[in-house]
Parts: sequence; structure tokens; C-alpha cells
Amino acid sequence: MAEKEKRVEAITAMDQDFTQWYTDVVLKAELIDYSAVKGCMILRPYGFAIWENIQSNLDRQFKATGHENVAMPMFIPESLLQKEKDHVAGFAPEVAWVTQGGNEQLTERLCVRPTSETLFCDHYARIIQSWRDLPKLYNQWVSVVRWEKTTRPFLRSTEFYWQEGHTAHATAAEANEETLRMLGIYADFYRDYLAIPVIPGQKTEKEKFAGAVSTYTIEAMMHDGKALQSATSHYFGDGFARAFNIQYTDRSNQLQYVHQTSWGLSTRSVGAIIMVHGDDSGLVLPPRVAPIQIAVIPIAAHKPGVLEKATAIANQLSQCFRVKLDTSDKQPGWKFSEYEMKGVPLRLEVGPRDLENNQALAVRRDTGAKQAVSLDGLADSLQVLLDEIHDNLYTRALQNRDSRIYQAADWDEFTGLIAGKPGFVKAMWCGDPACEAKIKDETGATSRCLPFDQTPVAEHCVCCGRPAEHLVIWGKAY
Amino acid sequence: MAEKEKRVEAITAMDQDFTQWYTDVVLKAELIDYSAVKGCMILRPYGFAIWENIQSNLDRQFKATGHENVAMPMFIPESLLQKEKDHVAGFAPEVAWVTQGGNEQLTERLCVRPTSETLFCDHYARIIQSWRDLPKLYNQWVSVVRWEKTTRPFLRSTEFYWQEGHTAHATAAEANEETLRMLGIYADFYRDYLAIPVIPGQKTEKEKFAGAVSTYTIEAMMHDGKALQSATSHYFGDGFARAFNIQYTDRSNQLQYVHQTSWGLSTRSVGAIIMVHGDDSGLVLPPRVAPIQIAVIPIAAHKPGVLEKATAIANQLSQCFRVKLDTSDKQPGWKFSEYEMKGVPLRLEVGPRDLENNQALAVRRDTGAKQAVSLDGLADSLQVLLDEIHDNLYTRALQNRDSRIYQAADWDEFTGLIAGKPGFVKAMWCGDPACEAKIKDETGATSRCLPFDQTPVAEHCVCCGRPAEHLVIWGKAY
Repeated sequence: MAEKEKRVEAITAMDQDFTQWYTDVVLKAELIDYSAVKGCMILRPYGFAIWENIQSNLDRQFKATGHENVAMPMFIPESLLQKEKDHVAGFAPEVAWVTQGGNEQLTERLCVRPTSETLFCDHYARIIQSWRDLPKLYNQWVSVVRWEKTTRPFLRSTEFYWQEGHTAHATAAEANEETLRMLGIYADFYRDYLAIPVIPGQKTEKEKFAGAVSTYTIEAMMHDGKALQSATSHYFGDGFARAFNIQYTDRSNQLQYVHQTSWGLSTRSVGAIIMVHGDDSGLVLPPRVAPIQIAVIPIAAHKPGVLEKATAIANQLSQCFRVKLDTSDKQPGWKFSEYEMKGVPLRLEVGPRDLENNQALAVRRDTGAKQAVSLDGLADSLQVLLDEIHDNLYTRALQNRDSRIYQAADWDEFTGLIAGKPGFVKAMWCGDPACEAKIKDETGATSRCLPFDQTPVAEHCVCCGRPAEHLVIWGKAY
Repeated sequence: MAEKEKRVEAITAMDQDFTQWYTDVVLKAELIDYSAVKGCMILRPYGFAIWENIQSNLDRQFKATGHENVAMPMFIPESLLQKEKDHVAGFAPEVAWVTQGGNEQLTERLCVRPTSETLFCDHYARIIQSWRDLPKLYNQWVSVVRWEKTTRPFLRSTEFYWQEGHTAHATAAEANEETLRMLGIYADFYRDYLAIPVIPGQKTEKEKFAGAVSTYTIEAMMHDGKALQSATSHYFGDGFARAFNIQYTDRSNQLQYVHQTSWGLSTRSVGAIIMVHGDDSGLVLPPRVAPIQIAVIPIAAHKPGVLEKATAIANQLSQCFRVKLDTSDKQPGWKFSEYEMKGVPLRLEVGPRDLENNQALAVRRDTGAKQAVSLDGLADSLQVLLDEIHDNLYTRALQNRDSRIYQAADWDEFTGLIAGKPGFVKAMWCGDPACEAKIKDETGATSRCLPFDQTPVAEHCVCCGRPAEHLVIWGKAY
């Protein structure tokens, strides 16, 4: 009976109801559980392990580029949050406030950090004195809280997990360079680890971060054609430095303000993995961040030698891969559907007939293709297969995305595409916030970014017909 | 000028004012900065790196013993905190309360987690149904908040960092075994990574965790003779399971309550490192968690070949060790005192004369001993030296501690020792909480633990003279 309950049930088909499909996947693949706190998710072991793999790979790259980890408090006194005017205006409406500590009423409210610029600035003002103290290249891995009305696991939750980098530099040029360097690291990470193509670009004034001079973004397209802002990197100029009085003595003994950046990537990236690669059988995980890369499943495990050999193979593969050997008494078919639901990139079936032939059967999650693999040089063969799966996932996502990037030269074409074709629309813009606002109001599409590749698709603004200034990627977004 | 400011200033001598010495060290070794939030510390890169090394080593051991990481929300609704009566009584007076989200007043207050038993139990009640779901061996690395009146960096802060393991088992025996297994992992970790000897034992009823059946602890002695509770492991029986209705169907199809544990080790461990190994020149770090294990310092760096050779040596050593090559233009003497203050286990001086002799000069932080080391087989020689430093730190700490563990057979002897000799006192106890309370009230010493080694030192309670039930380690504590 217990086994029956355990069998993975069918999930809603993507094309039937994408939202329900997403919810089914995050629950049935055991990524999350809902918690007692509205809008806060519990990351279960399988979900958290994906995030751990993202963390360890990114953290290595941050450290290789000279960044150091620190830990700031989770609370921000209200007066500190208010020091930079644009910043507080952007965040104050959506923060959680601590007003009591123990039995006492606090004289000043503390907000639970929605982001930590103000804390880093307050610290930088104390520790930066001389040009010798620069640059400061700090990062922290923490959770932050934003009081959201409507929430969805990974995509928008009251509490979410991320890293936030905060750096201070002697010059504007250095800070700008850092901002773009980190955007590049994010874009490469999405391509090389998550197998997701992204479009890098700049946010418009309307869409930029509260307090930034300029915000850069990478935008990915989900399976339903919607955009997901996948990571951002901000250049602050000396705005925060002036508000927090972060000054240093330069080599000529002159007082100067520092120039700053911040950049972040969050558990939204797990949402991107689900919505870019997943299918009607559940999750499909890119191998380089999959908690289990290879599931080894004995077939006819009661036959002599099978269990021993499967165990030996699993132990050997564990030297190079994240491996799960499943010796439970469930039927193989049930195991297959469980690892399919969990998106394990490769399943390795080990049965009596395979062993007679000194081979095992490798089954790819991305294509379903089965192939016999010799036990001689098995690890090398499986590494090749995992790399092929990564490349195939990326290529498939890229084709999917590119087939749904459209161009519009005028308003009718634009509104027709936005209403009728899920995807991105490339269209020109005059630069007037009024046009941007009108597009959002009338179509529901927002400016995702001004892509770095600014090859024009027309001469006039798609909204007002005036001469165009920028190429913009438009789309509906999560 | 800037260089002068940079020079590490002298710190207060330990014997003159231990408290001020501690504060000087945490600030001048750049472990922490005070933050804008009272009682919350900022972990600076050097301080956080020690914690990262503690984390990665412990996390590996947790995983090797079958534990999985998860992430629970940072908030606990008031009603959830109140489900287990002893637990809420213990924690409610010292939590921070969120009462507003955005612009709205919350209908139910949320506390910022002081510990997460209630969240894990709420989750376990949903995901545990059958004996097949057990055991659940979960852990999380997070910060928690306790509204403390008096705070000190690492030792007692409003927000602090820790890991909290929470497990659920089919039987009491399994849960008890887990409780002691994790205590053993903590004790071994303190010995093998932090070079700190600890006394494992059980807490009295008065000192146990709110909601636990039994609490186990490891107690370390600081340089000033005071005790530091260094990690704890709790056995809960089925108390939480009954309060949260966490039941499973056993193999005979009967409903049973699970038996639970929790266990934690925090950034207090960094405080222990400081106060066990530090000296009047600053920090002394045990090599296995030191952020920099070897500081390579070129001497007469302008002489031909020195800088190149020092760089080559540092690069080579970086394959095996955490190495810092310091090529800044500060005087070597200033560099020496900086790395002494930061407790770097080994300094490697590379000068022209050394190079002529195909050697470098290794200087130990723990003893100050200098020795020429051949560049042939350098990494192996330094590994031996680092292991010797670890062993020496441990032996020194053990001798220090053991020389200050006293025995008392009667009240006069006991009070004389507690008042006159900083350290631990072994003395017998009748088991009556009234005696425990009287000892605390009249001497300031608390029962640190009932050590596992219960070899008696007398026959009667040191307080009331009635027949003794237990040997207790008494001491003043942080």
C-alpha cells in the first residue's frame, strides 16, 4: 500500500496549464514545501542541493576574480535605510518591520533586509580611508525579504535566497568595468552551467534598480514565451558614497568619493531551470548542477551478481559524478518515473543480460535515447554523454527561444505579436518614458532590456513614430 | 602617512584585562566590525573565512553521515512557536517580532527564528507518513536571532550564525544514538580542526534546552579559566512529535510518533579559537581552519630574483595550502606584526641569502621558532610543520586546561576554589536543583555538565552533604 502512495502521479500537461504544470513539478519533484508563513517556501533537500551546486560554482568564480565573502546583519535600522532617497522610495513599501525585541517596544523600527546596499555603505564609510583600501570586492550569500502580495515558489517569494555582491572602487571606470564583468560571469554561468541562453543588456530608467545610475540584466525566455530577469548588475556612480560619506584619500592626498556597484543572482535561477528545460514528465536538470547526475538502477536485482555489480559500478562512478544507487524494493518502472520527475540527466540500468555483455544501459532524460555502454571506460563514456546532454539542452533552449523572437516595425504589428505570439518582440523606441508606459499599459509587455547588440530593426519608435533612439527587447515577464 | 596608519598597534595584554584584550583582537585582526544594529556584528572577510572553513569541514562530515541540507523560512508565526509549551516558555522572552509587512499591520506576529524546531516539526508532520520516510536527517546553515541585553562579538550576539541539525527517527534508541553521534562529531571536530580539547557530558535539568528530554554538551576552557559551551545536541523523545502530531505508520501498520533530535554549533566556535589559542601578539589560528596558512614574505624584494622566486614559491604552495604572498611596499617588520596579529600559523621569509642556499626561513606563530627549510620538498616540510603546530596548540591547550581543573570535596574547599582559582571544579552533587541554584547564587559558578566520565571524587554532595548522585563540572561561563 505504502508503495502505491509513493508512485509518482501524473502531472498537468504544460500546454494545458503552464502555471499548474509548474506547481506540480516543484512539489512532485520535492523541490519545495509550502511553509506556515505565507509566501515563504521550504527548500527541501533536492531543491536546496540544486542551489548548493549553483552556489559552489559561482562562489569559485567570484573568488577567482578577487571577491571575498562577508556577512552583514539581517536588520537595517529605518534611519539607515532612509539615507539614499531613491533607494528608500523603491524598497520601503515592501519590507517587513521588526518593532518589538523580547518584551520591549523598539524606539526605532528595524527592517529585515530586502537588499543590503545601506549596510555595506555604512561599513565602507568606516573601513575605507585611503586609496590603498580600494577596491573592496565583497559578496554575501544570504536570504532577503520583500513583502510580496502574490508569490510563487522560486519566482517571487517573500523570503528568497541569493548572493549580493557590493564593491567600492577608486574610479567610475573601474566600477563600470566591474559591473559589466559580473554581468558577463552571470551570462557565462547561465550558458555553461544551467544550459540557458540569455540576452544581456541595459535596463531603462523606469526598470532600473532603486538608487542605481544604470542597471544591467540578463533576460531568459521561459517555455511559455515569458521573460525571466535572471540576474542583475548595478552601477551606482558615487550616489551612495555621497549619501553615506564614503571617501578616500587619493595618491595626491585629495579626498574623493568611491564609485560603487552591486550585483545579484537568486533562487529564481532554479525557476529558470524548471521553466526552460522541464517537460510533461517533470524536471529536466542540466548535468552540471543536478544533485544526482546518474541514477544507477539494478534490474532483476534478485538475480545472482546484479546487486553486487550495480553497487560496484555506483561506487566507482561516485569518484567522478554525483551518483544515486537505488536498491529499494520498488519496481524499476516506478523508479524510472521517479527519476524522470526529478530530472536526473542519466539513468544507468544494470541487469543480468547487460552484465553478460560487460555493459550497462544508459538512458538520457533529455531525449529518452537509450544506449548500451561498455563497462570498460564507463566513466569516460558517461562524461561524454553528460556533456552532450548539456549541449543539447542549451541548443534546444536556444532554438526554442530564437524561434520566438519577433520584430515589429509599427504599432499594429507590435500589438498583434504581443497579443498573439508568446515570446519576445524586438522593436525600436524613442527613449520617451511615456511610450514605455503606454506599451505596458496597453499590451502588458515591459521593456526587458536594451540589448548590447543594438542592430536596429526600424527607424522609428514603434509606439509614437518619432525617430528611434534604442532597440528594445519587449515581452511579458515573470 | 597612510602606511603609518596601517601599522598594527599594540593590544592590551591578556593578563592586564582579558575582556579588553579580546575586543582588541577581534577588531585589530579584522574579524568583525560593529554594525548600525545594536548587538549585531559584521563578519569581515578574514572572520568570515574562518567560519567558511569550519562550515565546509563540518558540512562534509554531516553529509558523510547521511545528513541533507535544507532551508526553512526565517520567520515563525506566533501560533506555531506556541505549540510546544516548554519551548515557547524558553524562547518567547528573547525573540524579535515582525509586526508589519509593507504598510499593513500583520494579524499574527511573526518571530525571527531563535532556533527552528517548530518549523522543522511543522514540515515533518506533512512529509512523514510511513516508516519508509524515516529517518529524516536534515541540517541547515543559517543565522538566528535572540534579543540579548549584553552582547560580545562571537560569544553572545543578537544575530549569530550556526548550523542546526533536526532529525526524526522511528525509535527512541535511534534518536538517542543520533544525539550522541553528533556530539561525538563536534568533539572530534574541536580536537582535530580547532585544536581545542573539550569535555563531553550531559546538562542538568536546569541547564537543558527548552523542550528537550536531555541535552548533551561539549565544554571548553578559555585562557582566563572560564567555560564556553561549545556545541550542544538534544534528545527530544516524542514531545515535539505529540505537540505537532508527527506520526508514521510502522511495519505492522500501527501509527507511531517519531523521536527527534536537534544539534548545533555556532560562530561561538570562533570565540573559542580566539580565547583558547590567542596571545599578547593577537590571534593564533589552528592551521586547519586558518584562512591563510602560510604568509610568504619577500625580504629585500628589490634584489634581483627575490620577487620572482617568492612568487614562484607562493604559486607552488598554493596547490596544497591557503597561501598569501605579500608584495606590498610595507616594511617586512610591519608585515610580520600584521600576520602575527592575524594568527597566520606559518610565515615564510624569502630573501637573497636564503635563495643562495636554496632555502627559505619558516617562522612558527605558535612558538616563534625559526627554521631554515630547503626549497626541495618544501610543501612536504611545511605540511609537517603545520601538523606540528596543530598538535602543539592542542597539547598546550590541554595542559593549560588540565592544570586548572580542581577537585572539591566540601563547601569550603569548593567556594575557595571558585573564588580564588579561575578554572573548573569537579565536585559531587546530590541531584537536587536547590543545591545547583544555591551554588550559582552564592558563587557565580554553574553546572557545566555531568561529564561522561563519572569517576567520583567524593561521596557526598559538595553543597548539602547528602549522598552524591553525580559528578559535575562546575565553572564560571561565557
